[in-house]
Amino acid sequence: MITGVIMAGGKGERFWPKSRIKMPKQFLKLYGDRTMIQQTVDRLKKVMPIKNIFVVTNIDYAEIISDQIPDLPTGNILIEPMGKNTAACIGLAALHTQRLGEDSIMVVVPSDHVIKDEETYISVLKSAIEKAKAGDNLVTIGIKPSHPETGYGYIKFRKLTKEIINKNPVHKVEQFVEKPDYDTAVRYVESGNYLWNSGMFIWKTSAILNAIYRYMPELNKALNTIREYFDTDKIEQVLYEEYSKLESISIDYGVMEKAQNVYVVPGDFGWDDVGSWTSIERLYEKDENGNVIRGNVVSVDTKKCIITGSEKLIATLGIEDVIIVDTEDALLICSKDKAQDVKEVLKELKKRKAEYL
Amino acid sequence: MITGVIMAGGKGERFWPKSRIKMPKQFLKLYGDRTMIQQTVDRLKKVMPIKNIFVVTNIDYAEIISDQIPDLPTGNILIEPMGKNTAACIGLAALHTQRLGEDSIMVVVPSDHVIKDEETYISVLKSAIEKAKAGDNLVTIGIKPSHPETGYGYIKFRKLTKEIINKNPVHKVEQFVEKPDYDTAVRYVESGNYLWNSGMFIWKTSAILNAIYRYMPELNKALNTIREYFDTDKIEQVLYEEYSKLESISIDYGVMEKAQNVYVVPGDFGWDDVGSWTSIERLYEKDENGNVIRGNVVSVDTKKCIITGSEKLIATLGIEDVIIVDTEDALLICSKDKAQDVKEVLKELKKRKAEYL
Repeated sequence: MITGVIMAGGKGERFWPKSRIKMPKQFLKLYGDRTMIQQTVDRLKKVMPIKNIFVVTNIDYAEIISDQIPDLPTGNILIEPMGKNTAACIGLAALHTQRLGEDSIMVVVPSDHVIKDEETYISVLKSAIEKAKAGDNLVTIGIKPSHPETGYGYIKFRKLTKEIINKNPVHKVEQFVEKPDYDTAVRYVESGNYLWNSGMFIWKTSAILNAIYRYMPELNKALNTIREYFDTDKIEQVLYEEYSKLESISIDYGVMEKAQNVYVVPGDFGWDDVGSWTSIERLYEKDENGNVIRGNVVSVDTKKCIITGSEKLIATLGIEDVIIVDTEDALLICSKDKAQDVKEVLKELKKRKAEYL
Repeated sequence: MITGVIMAGGKGERFWPKSRIKMPKQFLKLYGDRTMIQQTVDRLKKVMPIKNIFVVTNIDYAEIISDQIPDLPTGNILIEPMGKNTAACIGLAALHTQRLGEDSIMVVVPSDHVIKDEETYISVLKSAIEKAKAGDNLVTIGIKPSHPETGYGYIKFRKLTKEIINKNPVHKVEQFVEKPDYDTAVRYVESGNYLWNSGMFIWKTSAILNAIYRYMPELNKALNTIREYFDTDKIEQVLYEEYSKLESISIDYGVMEKAQNVYVVPGDFGWDDVGSWTSIERLYEKDENGNVIRGNVVSVDTKKCIITGSEKLIATLGIEDVIIVDTEDALLICSKDKAQDVKEVLKELKKRKAEYL
């Protein structure tokens, strides 16, 4: 049995003012006609039925998820009492997939990434699933790097492995590495045995629970307590108490970097994490001056800008490398090289104008 | 008798999108709590009664003027059938002040300039009026230049003249010169005998009509025809016919550059023609990063920008020397060094989105 776990608790601050705390990136149509999470569900439904898909999120987003994915059973929306990074999120989901069977395969994916070539993605995913079925393997999907990106973590794999499943090679992972500096990234890409860490994981429920038992005893203890109170009226209180005690640790750091039986399937399917407004440049077509323009825009002498509006007229004159995002109640004007620092604006808003967060 | 003529037909395109064809600069509150034309009327009322003030404009602005200056007699709004520059405008006004008396003094002023030091202005204006009363003199007010501005015309005066009226010196004008290039402007300012052309003129009605008779025979002929049809039901038609035939000529070019009896009173009263968005920098206080900010703005790492909005939040990050003007239905983002080229945006709008003009 194959199950899906969609991690959908992120706040996506870097897409402010289009994204807000109450409506983060995964619920927006940043690419295509469906929202990011809808596209994520659409993809998983090609490999498993909707009743096997769990969405892990927080209480604020439960209603949006119900609205955006009407065929998702209400019980499949798993509410974390607070965000404690991906290890806790995945652990909680595993308690649910476990009830569907110890051997159930978990396909864990973020809710806010773009995948352009769905066919190739499904093929890679199926190979990863096969590898996960064959034992206690912890499998991840690594993205073939197109450039020395410093915004992603990398996965180093051992080139010797020659295993091929369903046409896709599977490699043994040597190391998960943090976001590198530029020179290191160049070295990684040139070496040919580094992939981008996509945050997508495939394993048996029993395999990840065993790994958590082995490498994350505190989380394991919390999960055991939570399991005891399932289907009781104390579950919310217990979840809150147990989550309160947990450290905030990623599954990469907590498990993947320590485990031995870790494999990666390289993928090349137009993946993008859409991490900030500059990502939009990779997704949309540019005009003859290198601008990405959406909305009612008149641009004169305007180069390499990203302009996103709606009905209201936006006129630009003599600007270059500027990001303009116009929404109903807030407007952002930001130089492209500061796109990663939108959080600085949010800090100011927190202090003075929290209604716009 | 002293009369006032306020020229209020300008389109003020350089303040788009705050100004529109239907609501140009002179009707906006760009500085202070009253609109530019209201402030102009307020100043003139210190020297003459409202019933002596004429406002020359076109049919589109008549209602705005009635609304903004409720005590102005309706008959004092003079409607030109089309804009034909300042010579025709002043000629038409002279036909009206003539009916109040051949010797009536005309104080001709633009409707869209800022004057910060009103007391000094009134003193300079009174001196100009005295000089105009004393014969057929054509008198203008010149602004002491604070910097080598290339956006203004200049008035060269003869330093020898030592005449002083009411504490203000009066000089004989040698030459009206067009907008200079930067090096020439530097030379003008250093020489000490150049002033900025403010477009303010003071003379007897008979004096300017005589000058038009002498230097602008076509305009003189048209005015004589128009005068004949005053108070008849053909006046609108005649105005249209006569204006249609006229060349578009400024009073500077048509009369002032040719006449001999031209005088200038230098003034230093915080004058600004508010010619484009960058003028706003001279009028408003800057924050510690050199920004002029009005509206609901959060700026991070933002320098030397001009930001004008209202209730909607404008957030800026990592930008410098940018002009941002947000209005209900249109937003302009423009580099400061292109502020004079806003007309390029308007050209585009004319072609594609005329509703925003």
